[in-house]
Amino acid sequence: MARFKVTYRVTASDAAEARQRAEGIALEQTVEIPRDIVPTGFIEDEILGLVESIDTEDGNHFNAVISYSPETAGPDLIQLLNVIFGNSSIQHGIRVVGFDPGTEIRNRYPGARFGVAGLRKLTGRKQGGLIAPVIKPMGSTSDELAEIAYRCALAGADLVKDDHGLANQSSAPFQSRVVKVAAAVARANSETGGNCLYFPNLAGAPHQIMEQAMFAKHAGAHGLLVMPGLFGFGSIFELANEPELGLPIMAHPSFLGSYVLSADTGFSHAVMFGVLQRLAGTDISVFPNLGGRFGFTREECISIAAACTDPDGIGIPMLPSPGGGMSPERAAEMQAMYGQDVVYLLGGSLLRYGDRIGEGIKLMRAQLD
Amino acid sequence: MARFKVTYRVTASDAAEARQRAEGIALEQTVEIPRDIVPTGFIEDEILGLVESIDTEDGNHFNAVISYSPETAGPDLIQLLNVIFGNSSIQHGIRVVGFDPGTEIRNRYPGARFGVAGLRKLTGRKQGGLIAPVIKPMGSTSDELAEIAYRCALAGADLVKDDHGLANQSSAPFQSRVVKVAAAVARANSETGGNCLYFPNLAGAPHQIMEQAMFAKHAGAHGLLVMPGLFGFGSIFELANEPELGLPIMAHPSFLGSYVLSADTGFSHAVMFGVLQRLAGTDISVFPNLGGRFGFTREECISIAAACTDPDGIGIPMLPSPGGGMSPERAAEMQAMYGQDVVYLLGGSLLRYGDRIGEGIKLMRAQLD
Repeated sequence: MARFKVTYRVTASDAAEARQRAEGIALEQTVEIPRDIVPTGFIEDEILGLVESIDTEDGNHFNAVISYSPETAGPDLIQLLNVIFGNSSIQHGIRVVGFDPGTEIRNRYPGARFGVAGLRKLTGRKQGGLIAPVIKPMGSTSDELAEIAYRCALAGADLVKDDHGLANQSSAPFQSRVVKVAAAVARANSETGGNCLYFPNLAGAPHQIMEQAMFAKHAGAHGLLVMPGLFGFGSIFELANEPELGLPIMAHPSFLGSYVLSADTGFSHAVMFGVLQRLAGTDISVFPNLGGRFGFTREECISIAAACTDPDGIGIPMLPSPGGGMSPERAAEMQAMYGQDVVYLLGGSLLRYGDRIGEGIKLMRAQLD
Repeated sequence: MARFKVTYRVTASDAAEARQRAEGIALEQTVEIPRDIVPTGFIEDEILGLVESIDTEDGNHFNAVISYSPETAGPDLIQLLNVIFGNSSIQHGIRVVGFDPGTEIRNRYPGARFGVAGLRKLTGRKQGGLIAPVIKPMGSTSDELAEIAYRCALAGADLVKDDHGLANQSSAPFQSRVVKVAAAVARANSETGGNCLYFPNLAGAPHQIMEQAMFAKHAGAHGLLVMPGLFGFGSIFELANEPELGLPIMAHPSFLGSYVLSADTGFSHAVMFGVLQRLAGTDISVFPNLGGRFGFTREECISIAAACTDPDGIGIPMLPSPGGGMSPERAAEMQAMYGQDVVYLLGGSLLRYGDRIGEGIKLMRAQLD
């Protein structure tokens, strides 16, 4: 079986230490026993991770490529992630910066079911960025949230999403919220002839998520917002690949920040918000935009967008969705940076318009066109 | 409703910036809109996070206590974690270092069902540290793993656990492995009259976990090893609180390292491996021991053990379980440091004994007694 490869950026004082650390990762992520007692034969030849190459990045950082047999991952995404970074996540100075799935893992993980092309078809937005206002704040009633969604859809939003903090609070419980907001968006669509989509934020206990997702579909939702940092990437994969559900998935970065913020541990921004998302089947990947209240750099944001749309990535290209500090005033700058295939999240800046929220949507659309 | 409180260690250049950042967290984790457009009444008075206090830790770090209404969390652990640290995880210089659940959250989250007392009863080990050998390596057959488990149980191990890398690989698929290892441990117990427990590593896709857990119970497993970093803390809570299951839960730190390694982001070691585990219902919390191949300090390890057994914590005290680089030679040092209520994981050092693995167990027991 074609092995998959992970590139680890390893902190080490010299090439000899980098080699030693890479051999350590190859053991840690598979057999987890000392090298000298690894059984010969199948375990040594197939199961043990293999250091394929080590390149110097700078004096203290080395890029080590380690290959693994798909047999180590078994049939489940959770175990694949466990092999990629399970225990090595706990060691200082190891960061995952690249993933080459190889043919076997590509066959197992089809990637996004909708992606860029599918979302353009669903929204009817043939070109240009998609506008995605966020309904909030937490504590609002379902009726209040539905009214905001209605105004946004009427004004030409492509996609209305719940704030990721809207869960199952008594002010707007998941099921009643989804019913009311979906109906409001449908009413606006019937008035405009448009195809604004509604993505509720999946909420509930783990055993309820498929039931909640099916409820949302039958209530008229067009997709789902899901937080892999809290529900797990395995849940994204299940939702994306359940044939009876058939809804596009938008992933939210909540609880995932700690994986990218430290330069010497975790995952690179591109792997976390691009590569892993495509592996799991995400169609739209939300990430914090530069210049807002999150500290991502321009380079990091561009690397995420590139990983989302890379034609050589897993499955079909999907949509990057920068949010945080986004406003109509920044539309031109954002378009120059991200290009056409992007979903612009508009949150707090839009709510500032109050009842005239539609004006903000129209202004954003005009700026993008 | 009694509010719960989270202590954030905030990086800031002075007290004024610390105040500004704390007010920002209170918004970010709840309403997620600018302060001046937060609706008055219920949302401003109840939903919005409230900065209770800010203390200076040193010139660049401040401890900000923010309280939240249980209403923000709704009924689910996933949303409670989302309020504690969701989007703030993505901002630089914010680390969760304390959690005070308050009476309402304490009522909702009973904590460990077995804990220290329950595990002592199940194992019959009335005092002293528990010895927990790990069966591995990945790639071994179920029969080979069962043989190792048998020898360990025969020699007096208190608890045999699967390596966290044993999932659903074809060399030892979950169900056949559990059946064979559970039978081997039962055979050893019948010969010794002892009560060695077997904790298989939960494997499968998210929708299968309860079914897999029930299968393990019926096959004779006495508990479950679960990785919250990959299955989510919500799954730990469901497994711990399912009355028909009724098995103790041992949590493994795989994929969680990035939350603790950087001193200025994520969670403190005590919160991640103690407080959050007790909130979810974990009975035994595995963490990397000092002096092994992981870089945790003595102080960090002691803080984890203290959080696991703190009588004021959520629910009853549970067992800390240091692993990594553990060996009979270090037993005395470890006992002096951790005290009596601890589960010692023994992995690679024990497998070095090969067929004489029982000797290693007996040596460890002798050292502890």
